[in-house]
Amino acid sequence: MSLHPFDAALVLQPLGDGRYRGATSPAWANMVGPFGGITAATVVNAVVAYAECLGAPVSLTINYVAAIADGDYVLQLRIARTNRSTQHWVFEISQTSASGTTECVITGTVMTAQRRETWSSNDLPLPKVVPPEALAEVPAPKVTEWFSRYDMRSVSGGIPQVWDGAESMLPLDQASLTQLWVRDRAGRALDFAALAATSDIFFPRIWARRAKWTPAGTVSMTVYFHADGAQLSEVGAGFVLAQARGQVFRNGFFDQSACLWSETGVPLATTHQLVYFKE
Amino acid sequence: MSLHPFDAALVLQPLGDGRYRGATSPAWANMVGPFGGITAATVVNAVVAYAECLGAPVSLTINYVAAIADGDYVLQLRIARTNRSTQHWVFEISQTSASGTTECVITGTVMTAQRRETWSSNDLPLPKVVPPEALAEVPAPKVTEWFSRYDMRSVSGGIPQVWDGAESMLPLDQASLTQLWVRDRAGRALDFAALAATSDIFFPRIWARRAKWTPAGTVSMTVYFHADGAQLSEVGAGFVLAQARGQVFRNGFFDQSACLWSETGVPLATTHQLVYFKE
Repeated sequence: MSLHPFDAALVLQPLGDGRYRGATSPAWANMVGPFGGITAATVVNAVVAYAECLGAPVSLTINYVAAIADGDYVLQLRIARTNRSTQHWVFEISQTSASGTTECVITGTVMTAQRRETWSSNDLPLPKVVPPEALAEVPAPKVTEWFSRYDMRSVSGGIPQVWDGAESMLPLDQASLTQLWVRDRAGRALDFAALAATSDIFFPRIWARRAKWTPAGTVSMTVYFHADGAQLSEVGAGFVLAQARGQVFRNGFFDQSACLWSETGVPLATTHQLVYFKE
Repeated sequence: MSLHPFDAALVLQPLGDGRYRGATSPAWANMVGPFGGITAATVVNAVVAYAECLGAPVSLTINYVAAIADGDYVLQLRIARTNRSTQHWVFEISQTSASGTTECVITGTVMTAQRRETWSSNDLPLPKVVPPEALAEVPAPKVTEWFSRYDMRSVSGGIPQVWDGAESMLPLDQASLTQLWVRDRAGRALDFAALAATSDIFFPRIWARRAKWTPAGTVSMTVYFHADGAQLSEVGAGFVLAQARGQVFRNGFFDQSACLWSETGVPLATTHQLVYFKE
């Protein structure tokens, strides 16, 4: 049985001392380098699979330090501290060029925790939107192979059809808002790694904000995992509602605030990005 | 001339190779350990002051791995990569106990950048609120010394006056919303370090959400710096509007989304936290 494309991309070869060799996967190629989400997923998967891992991920920050070149990379994972119910991780990904120079391409931190049942409240309810079955699939663009790994259904704020440079006429809190249903096209069930990947599913908010073709790339992403493993299992291979908006666009960077919900309204993760853009 | 209390707390003694010795400051004590904002500020200040620093901070993630004990600590700062216009930093703070054990208490990453003028848009306009001059100062509680370092004026969603466990009756998007004006009490001007500190100014959202005394502490904070040095200079020692709300509260953790604006409506930073709470 061959591995699902998502799981195939996460495969790491242990080198000892928390070091692993991985390789970029053509199935997850972005315009330059791999889809940021698959790199985040690879790290989260390595943390969860680590023998000494305490609990489950609650927080991830990943910095896209430089474009990852197609080919091999080395992930270095380290437990910075283990507390009674929480654990802090530090990671770094580096690549060695043909000339023998090793350079850092990813930095970041993960926190895992054993959670206890407490008073809980979801103050970010699932928006009232059309169900995924009522929507057509977004056709995958040819330039970004990873797009084809997902079944996406645009609810609102899709990629501009006409690149005329026009600014959004919507109120500011909707001017760069995108809502879409998304699931793995090959039916791979949701877990913490897949949730991390899905957190990076959005096209750059600046394209929604004004229909001008602008090169853009995430430089830092933070994910707060609200769901536990049981809640993720309940989602299975089902759809997730993904919503994002830009907040402040200024001098080459903008930030994005986003949330992912299950179809039954469980808030799975809230996530934020800082994105570089070039005019 | 004695140093301002904020600057006094940021003083580090260089040990070479990006290592510095610092010490907690009684003026910035929280209930347990120092105010998280002053630790974030210390790191940001060290990055900005570093000879090889490229540009100014655009992103910071700091993880509060364990309570910092009163006394000395060692900050290790490292440039992970320098690109043409961006630079990525990794840091860690550790403390050595009387028994000689060295343990990590803080991890995190910083990104700095040389920014160029581009198309810009503020999609998070300053809320319409009462100006600070029309509001009384919030009296500082005795248990948190750092509170006295700031002049805070509550606009809405202040600390509960009665701890009767009642849940907020407000709509969910306002149920844990706090707005306050804040400035340094001793007139210290705003810079990147002070902006990082101010990002951690909020009392735990769960107290606003329901008036039940609940121990809580930030475990991870991310700050996206939208303002440049000139815009921070314009604020000077003036008031900043700080707004925060909780999003998802579940099984011991909640997340917070926040923004800081100048009095003239410039969005200075957006910031997010994951906060542990104990029932």
